[in-house]
Amino acid sequence: MSALKNDRYLRALLREPVDATPLWVMRQAGRYLPEYRATRARAGSFMDLCNNPDLACEVTLQPLKRFDLDAAILFSDILTIPDAMGLGLYFAEGEGPRFKKTIQCAAGIDALGVLDPEVELRYVMDAVRVIRRELNGEIPLIGFSGSPWTLATYMVEGGSTKDFGKVKGMMFSSPKEMHRLLDILAKSVISYLNAQIAAGAQSVMVFDTWGGVLSPRDYEEFSLRYMDQIVSGLTRENEGRRVPVTLFTKGGGAWLEAIADTGCDAVGLDWTINIGDARRRIGDRVALQGNMDPSILYAAPERIEAEVGTILSGYGHGSGHVFNLGHGIHQKINPDHVKTLVDAVHAQSVPFHAG
Amino acid sequence: MSALKNDRYLRALLREPVDATPLWVMRQAGRYLPEYRATRARAGSFMDLCNNPDLACEVTLQPLKRFDLDAAILFSDILTIPDAMGLGLYFAEGEGPRFKKTIQCAAGIDALGVLDPEVELRYVMDAVRVIRRELNGEIPLIGFSGSPWTLATYMVEGGSTKDFGKVKGMMFSSPKEMHRLLDILAKSVISYLNAQIAAGAQSVMVFDTWGGVLSPRDYEEFSLRYMDQIVSGLTRENEGRRVPVTLFTKGGGAWLEAIADTGCDAVGLDWTINIGDARRRIGDRVALQGNMDPSILYAAPERIEAEVGTILSGYGHGSGHVFNLGHGIHQKINPDHVKTLVDAVHAQSVPFHAG
Repeated sequence: MSALKNDRYLRALLREPVDATPLWVMRQAGRYLPEYRATRARAGSFMDLCNNPDLACEVTLQPLKRFDLDAAILFSDILTIPDAMGLGLYFAEGEGPRFKKTIQCAAGIDALGVLDPEVELRYVMDAVRVIRRELNGEIPLIGFSGSPWTLATYMVEGGSTKDFGKVKGMMFSSPKEMHRLLDILAKSVISYLNAQIAAGAQSVMVFDTWGGVLSPRDYEEFSLRYMDQIVSGLTRENEGRRVPVTLFTKGGGAWLEAIADTGCDAVGLDWTINIGDARRRIGDRVALQGNMDPSILYAAPERIEAEVGTILSGYGHGSGHVFNLGHGIHQKINPDHVKTLVDAVHAQSVPFHAG
Repeated sequence: MSALKNDRYLRALLREPVDATPLWVMRQAGRYLPEYRATRARAGSFMDLCNNPDLACEVTLQPLKRFDLDAAILFSDILTIPDAMGLGLYFAEGEGPRFKKTIQCAAGIDALGVLDPEVELRYVMDAVRVIRRELNGEIPLIGFSGSPWTLATYMVEGGSTKDFGKVKGMMFSSPKEMHRLLDILAKSVISYLNAQIAAGAQSVMVFDTWGGVLSPRDYEEFSLRYMDQIVSGLTRENEGRRVPVTLFTKGGGAWLEAIADTGCDAVGLDWTINIGDARRRIGDRVALQGNMDPSILYAAPERIEAEVGTILSGYGHGSGHVFNLGHGIHQKINPDHVKTLVDAVHAQSVPFHAG
């Protein structure tokens, strides 16, 4: 394997010196790009796009042609595991993800298939291999998965939810069954991410989109515990390099110390926490990823540039910061504003890495 | 005015000694009660129910007949102010609140009517007067309003939203216009709550349902600043008693110190924060309200009782705690579970107030 031409992203995750702060953008391959919408229309459904390694590669690379990004992220969905377990993932127009089958009881958990990622999720591994080849050593490729708790919310609710009544109902009424489900999911996430690493992912990230709807105690017991299990089970070295792992709990700002305690390399931050405070709390142990409010991208370029400055100086001097939004980019954002963001991060961050 | 037969709720808000921890339940008059659903069906639409003082009183009193609650809360909606300003509030089945008109620009802000609460919101004041009369001094009555930022989100978005793109777009692109809107709303909330107090509300609460979607800096500038203005403008004494004010920002656990700095009497907590930590941070200055996850009410009575014990002992000994859920009760909750909760809080809390 050849060396990476731009390894800022991996270096920052390991808190090694960099010349400028690296960045990528959550959902950087997405509907705000007209070329994405064109490929998506050609593919058919969203899942048809995910399932086709060549098209998944095509959309993964699209934002890299426009913007000077420091990492690519596999184009896929956080819900591929429950889909591969037989629940039948689909996307209803304007409604987000839905499952044809849901988990309601112990029997539903028993019936879940055991996952061989190179069989049921071969299309993902093929996409990783194709993207990695096409990236040709320019920038690293990020693999990812949903967290066990986040996967469980969709599997029990059958889709998005406002109050999490069903999944929390199961959690509070049948905690043993919930733990059984989460344990199966944690083992599946480990084999899924290790397969992505074997296929070429140079860093992996676990998205705990819904950990923040739990109380501190329930978060530790039902979400963090399983991310901890995942961190312990992951391949941490490949191709002679460390494979950094980032954990991101949206709304998890109060629990950063506990997240860092898992032994992950980096912690993702949403925008509801000051990144300087986060660094003071855990910056001696892990790198930080984040944390611009995605809605800033609606504003004029000067406002975006000012916000970049605030976040960069909030983090302060030295490595250990991967700039990103605090959540996925919205679909109505003007792509020119993303260019403003990317260029501002690189230009403004140089002094923070000087001697 | 006669003295209250049960003033535990008001005493706890002022951190005066009580014999047991008082409680009420957010959305205690609501769809989980069959008698509420019957009155609602009789009334017509949700707004027909809010607009009819006798029916609003009827549903306000319903939970008090079933449960030994320590406060009643006016049955109304947080969005009555923008409705009275001419935006046309309605509730689409299963979709939550919607406005016929929305605020898109400076002209929309100019066109907002100036509010006289005893004229445009007379139906609310009439409801307060009727409820107060029917309560007959048993327990205190809570009045309430949405916070300026929370009202603005609905007025700009036209209803519920997942990403707050329009309202944040306005906030980041036209901060002066946003401040003008928020200032108008803060003044309206002050006159609205003062009118509720004059009509008989013995305590008031401001619901900042969406402050938690802001960054720390934007929260201070666009939400907290206007709640601070409200606290300063409220009638704090009436009928020879202090009228306590509670501020509640859902997702605001990181900012408790700043919320307490407004001079409010109590701070509401959702369930994503440990109440013992919250007391250590601000409990020498304000009372705390909360903070059980509403989903615990799906579980069996023993589990509910255990959770009550955890929260009571988390707060610890002495007054200053009003037990509540951390958000509104869900509509599918079994009312018997609410009885379990209410009785458990009273029974288990006595030792925390002894000697």
